[in-house]
Amino acid sequence: MSRLDVTEKIIATKVAKGLKWADVAREVGLSKEWVTAACLGQMTLDAEQAAVVARLFDLSEAEARWLQVVPYKGSLPTSVPTDPLIYRFHELVSVYGTTFKELIHEEFGDGIMSAIDFRMDLQREPDPKGDRVSITMSGKFLPYKTY
Amino acid sequence: MSRLDVTEKIIATKVAKGLKWADVAREVGLSKEWVTAACLGQMTLDAEQAAVVARLFDLSEAEARWLQVVPYKGSLPTSVPTDPLIYRFHELVSVYGTTFKELIHEEFGDGIMSAIDFRMDLQREPDPKGDRVSITMSGKFLPYKTY
Amino acid sequence: MSRLDVTEKIIATKVAKGLKWADVAREVGLSKEWVTAACLGQMTLDAEQAAVVARLFDLSEAEARWLQVVPYKGSLPTSVPTDPLIYRFHELVSVYGTTFKELIHEEFGDGIMSAIDFRMDLQREPDPKGDRVSITMSGKFLPYKTY
Amino acid sequence: MSRLDVTEKIIATKVAKGLKWADVAREVGLSKEWVTAACLGQMTLDAEQAAVVARLFDLSEAEARWLQVVPYKGSLPTSVPTDPLIYRFHELVSVYGTTFKELIHEEFGDGIMSAIDFRMDLQREPDPKGDRVSITMSGKFLPYKTY
Amino acid sequence: MSRLDVTEKIIATKVAKGLKWADVAREVGLSKEWVTAACLGQMTLDAEQAAVVARLFDLSEAEARWLQVVPYKGSLPTSVPTDPLIYRFHELVSVYGTTFKELIHEEFGDGIMSAIDFRMDLQREPDPKGDRVSITMSGKFLPYKTY
Amino acid sequence: MSRLDVTEKIIATKVAKGLKWADVAREVGLSKEWVTAACLGQMTLDAEQAAVVARLFDLSEAEARWLQVVPYKGSLPTSVPTDPLIYRFHELVSVYGTTFKELIHEEFGDGIMSAIDFRMDLQREPDPKGDRVSITMSGKFLPYKTY
Amino acid sequence: MSRLDVTEKIIATKVAKGLKWADVAREVGLSKEWVTAACLGQMTLDAEQAAVVARLFDLSEAEARWLQVVPYKGSLPTSVPTDPLIYRFHELVSVYGTTFKELIHEEFGDGIMSAIDFRMDLQREPDPKGDRVSITMSGKFLPYKTY
Amino acid sequence: MSRLDVTEKIIATKVAKGLKWADVAREVGLSKEWVTAACLGQMTLDAEQAAVVARLFDLSEAEARWLQVVPYKGSLPTSVPTDPLIYRFHELVSVYGTTFKELIHEEFGDGIMSAIDFRMDLQREPDPKGDRVSITMSGKFLPYKTY
Amino acid sequence: MSRLDVTEKIIATKVAKGLKWADVAREVGLSKEWVTAACLGQMTLDAEQAAVVARLFDLSEAEARWLQVVPYKGSLPTSVPTDPLIYRFHELVSVYGTTFKELIHEEFGDGIMSAIDFRMDLQREPDPKGDRVSITMSGKFLPYKTY
Amino acid sequence: MSRLDVTEKIIATKVAKGLKWADVAREVGLSKEWVTAACLGQMTLDAEQAAVVARLFDLSEAEARWLQVVPYKGSLPTSVPTDPLIYRFHELVSVYGTTFKELIHEEFGDGIMSAIDFRMDLQREPDPKGDRVSITMSGKFLPYKTY
Repeated sequence: MSRLDVTEKIIATKVAKGLKWADVAREVGLSKEWVTAACLGQMTLDAEQAAVVARLFDLSEAEARWLQVVPYKGSLPTSVPTDPLIYRFHELVSVYGTTFKELIHEEFGDGIMSAIDFRMDLQREPDPKGDRVSITMSGKFLPYKTY
Repeated sequence: MSRLDVTEKIIATKVAKGLKWADVAREVGLSKEWVTAACLGQMTLDAEQAAVVARLFDLSEAEARWLQVVPYKGSLPTSVPTDPLIYRFHELVSVYGTTFKELIHEEFGDGIMSAIDFRMDLQREPDPKGDRVSITMSGKFLPYKTY
Repeated sequence: MSRLDVTEKIIATKVAKGLKWADVAREVGLSKEWVTAACLGQMTLDAEQAAVVARLFDLSEAEARWLQVVPYKGSLPTSVPTDPLIYRFHELVSVYGTTFKELIHEEFGDGIMSAIDFRMDLQREPDPKGDRVSITMSGKFLPYKTY
Repeated sequence: MSRLDVTEKIIATKVAKGLKWADVAREVGLSKEWVTAACLGQMTLDAEQAAVVARLFDLSEAEARWLQVVPYKGSLPTSVPTDPLIYRFHELVSVYGTTFKELIHEEFGDGIMSAIDFRMDLQREPDPKGDRVSITMSGKFLPYKTY
Repeated sequence: MSRLDVTEKIIATKVAKGLKWADVAREVGLSKEWVTAACLGQMTLDAEQAAVVARLFDLSEAEARWLQVVPYKGSLPTSVPTDPLIYRFHELVSVYGTTFKELIHEEFGDGIMSAIDFRMDLQREPDPKGDRVSITMSGKFLPYKTY
Repeated sequence: MSRLDVTEKIIATKVAKGLKWADVAREVGLSKEWVTAACLGQMTLDAEQAAVVARLFDLSEAEARWLQVVPYKGSLPTSVPTDPLIYRFHELVSVYGTTFKELIHEEFGDGIMSAIDFRMDLQREPDPKGDRVSITMSGKFLPYKTY
Repeated sequence: MSRLDVTEKIIATKVAKGLKWADVAREVGLSKEWVTAACLGQMTLDAEQAAVVARLFDLSEAEARWLQVVPYKGSLPTSVPTDPLIYRFHELVSVYGTTFKELIHEEFGDGIMSAIDFRMDLQREPDPKGDRVSITMSGKFLPYKTY
Repeated sequence: MSRLDVTEKIIATKVAKGLKWADVAREVGLSKEWVTAACLGQMTLDAEQAAVVARLFDLSEAEARWLQVVPYKGSLPTSVPTDPLIYRFHELVSVYGTTFKELIHEEFGDGIMSAIDFRMDLQREPDPKGDRVSITMSGKFLPYKTY
Repeated sequence: MSRLDVTEKIIATKVAKGLKWADVAREVGLSKEWVTAACLGQMTLDAEQAAVVARLFDLSEAEARWLQVVPYKGSLPTSVPTDPLIYRFHELVSVYGTTFKELIHEEFGDGIMSAIDFRMDLQREPDPKGDRVSITMSGKFLPYKTY
Repeated sequence: MSRLDVTEKIIATKVAKGLKWADVAREVGLSKEWVTAACLGQMTLDAEQAAVVARLFDLSEAEARWLQVVPYKGSLPTSVPTDPLIYRFHELVSVYGTTFKELIHEEFGDGIMSAIDFRMDLQREPDPKGDRVSITMSGKFLPYKTY
């Protein structure tokens, strides 16, 4: 058994039981973004969180234990994703990558936006011309330091 | 002469004259995100916008004309970027890619967040534990349709 | 069980029962292009469509449920396809890619032809010198907007 | 001097003189699709066609001679294109590749749609919900034969 | 079951029963080149041919049916083959690729040698200094056409 | 100066002077296949051959000397060629690679067809249904030996 | 002019003048590790540091200004380095990568060692059996947080 | 059975029994760095060490024997790792690769730091601003020699 | 069953029974280099040799038959090997590749060292400063010929 | 100026002056293998050696200084070489890679053959059936050590 097996079981159970990520997140008591990433094998749960997920997805005790092990992260089969929805995010990095870089350096100097001390929130933004996906990301700025 | 030559001249002139993207954007009258991307060879300017950019960066008339031609987009030299700041965005797509997919489909059904009918806003988010980079993205949801 | 398993079962059943995509499409009540793509794991069916497909391909209820889950799209094992028929399409993009770009921008300005709000129709075009494959594609033009 | 130099000169001259591909095509007396591909270094012109193109783009006699040499084809810098407009075509091949294959084989048997004995036509398709790009492709079906 | 399973069974049965491709071809009544390619999953057999192959390789009726389905072609695990015999052919394309191009264009103009309307014949060429492999390829020339 | 510079000069001079490879080969006194490959930077000429080529292509003495240096071989910019004519040969290796392997081993045992002790001949094969390209390849069989 | 041009000038001047990185670092007043990385185009200098470097390497004022611009980082031409010294570090990541992961998670939980809030020190470690290279790295642990 | 199977069993048993690498190392009597790498399939154990590991992880005698076979090394699924913790080490090689090279050559001349005659030590470095990961590496310098 | 299965069984049996390649080679009556390569799936055995190997490794008759089939060669999972021992050979080709080329051409003219008509011998070379691996390779020189 | 420029000048001068590597090596007083590698930009010369090479190849003092700088090693443009002579060495690593590994480990235990403390000798081996290339490699065995 591996974490990947547990992730696949979670996904299959979700389809079979018709669960929703928003409901899972509510049960766990954290954001839907973090909880979904955790269930998809990208984050580490503590014992209590794992117990909730195990209950919802009918996981065994052994499977619940895997949820508490830090996973080898990366959720995509290829470095350039083929799925159109995910590719659009890859495209944003490709087209706006140097723009992110210029504007963050202009505001903060040399450093990066942390992808670890990071949170995000994804919402529907109603719009008469067609609703929009709104994503707010917040990552700590980490400066390079001289030494 | 090509659009790439014009982009390189803009970057070199920015260094030489010590310009700021925020100021360039103010002169153009649009967001700093769109204007920076345009100056970096990713967007197409109209004649008026091009004239402003040409004035600020000492571009010739021929160079200004290139700003009005649709560029071959993509700002990065490799599909997996080596620059640490830009890589963090690549990592977010890698780690959260399936999470984006699950949550957008749960909310909207099958489709994508447009990377064309798209806008974003990048701000400093003051925080006593260290200021944060805050990015808000808004893209129109485009549903797949049966036919 | 995963969507891939369902796709493979559909393909194997099609071979075993000698079904035709055109007939499947007629039963579903949509174009053969969309229905084939859906059966091959690229589109999402609603409950009613899934029921028809399940009946034709002897799918279980659990398998039918997978047809209603948005799949991870991309139908090819490598980014440059080895199959000669599919490669010819790759070659058209390689040879005519910049031509598509120039002509669409000349007609519409900066933007793209949507691959989401998209439909296509594939027909036999009789020709005394050898019949031809005729493909008509229609995708909404999506303009880049300033902000 | 190489064909690539001539292509780059044509592109730069087009920007400088504000020419349109549709007008160039009219002068040459062929479709805008073929003529644009030829000017972009993908097709071979005969002497008469080359003379017209040379006149319009101020090419020297030596440059015009290059237009009559069969070029090394392929117009894109990477096999997976970064440009969003061109990528959408790559995505169509990725998502619909197996669908093209199934439907052409169902109609014609084993073989391919020729990318050589091929023509296409790109038009604006007016639509109240937003105009569309309409592309009609026609390629001779070439059957595999036993021997 | 898939075509790949059938191909693997054919190969394993060939080893177990000590069959020869030349004999299989004689039974099918076609060239050893075409028949071998078909048995290796690259060509499509008709019902009669499939029946012969099924008899020789102890295939079930279901397996025989797969031989009549157009396969996803491409017989190699990597685009640059590691096997020394096959690599030599890759090397010929690498070293002589531009020579093929120049000489075919010099003789025929712009176009290609078809890999579909194609046949080949592989023979032992006795030679006192060491026998040679002789391969004759014949492919229809397909000209690019203006439109 | 490098061999590549000499190759490019030969190609450019060929375009400028309208030379034909068949005529060059006749002057050198060898096959058009070998001579074209040599002029394209894949083979090594002796002093006499180099003098003929230098005369025909207006090469300097220094350039002629480069023709006598063994080149770094490989004539294509990418391992999977984008040019349609050359790609068809790549496709033949992909589709027929395992067939070449099976048939040569069946006839000769373990070993390879040499790509060094190799010659080939490319001819027009008249055909009422459209002329064909005929290529005859002959390579010495080299057996693996035990030791 | 670009940062790369400045880096190349620094390297060439270092060879010409026989400078040592340790001496450059002493003049700048920081560690040899940080200063070397900065001179090689990986870190950003402030005005005072840039002035010192400019003096030592005979840089113009314009070149000194480039040293104060945040560079596009990544010092290697390929993602798997060919240089034997640098490859050994790549190999350490390949062989010990999962060991780093296990031990850091065992000690700290889920998170990473920062490569931004990072310093290192490289020293000769005398050893009778042959001197050793000793490298001490120190990076802040950054924990993943729930949200 | 293969070494990979044994590694996977060790990892699964570790999760099931809640073992710690530091404790395993203490039992084996060597550093946690070497022992972890060995358990993860990167080092070769002697009979005695293998017996300890077998006892702790409930390995069979056959499995213990595999621990004493030199493994095919390399612990990562892709040459550019997707896991954020491991990627940071890849990034250090990318950003500091040329710095390592310059400083080691400046101190020692031409040669490399051995990745074989190598040891390392990973510790928590308490820090009021957030604890740090401290890694000390020591590799023998191996000079290139003339011959 | 495939040749790969047989290779894996040989490797597993070798571990289980504690066999040595040198002993296997002695039984077969050929060099340890050729016999090891054959057992690892890279060479083809005759009936007698296969019988010896089958006896030593407890292979069935069917498995022994696979040893007599020419394998698809290439023993490494990636074209740039991750295993440190094997990588050093890759590095020798990378660093000394052009040196091999220059010296062989200087001595023999244009051509190659055969990797087919090839033998090698690997020995321990005692040395007071540490024993050395000594490898002697001998490959027939094959000249390119004009035609 | 860079080391690559010096290497290219050495190669061009060698062609122009008709020098031989064996003679250059004799002047330098070291093996032809080491000296050729050094002249091709893979090894570092001391002042005296550099002076000899500079004299033979008409290098300036600045160019001679570059010969004394440790180069970024790796002499090939792609990781899988296209040149047939060099490819044969790549193929030997691919086919015999696991054999090298097994035999060295059987003789020496876990460790590698050094590619740094390494020397080699390339000779013509006369043979009535065609002369052979004989290469003797000697690399120190470096054992992995526990710690």
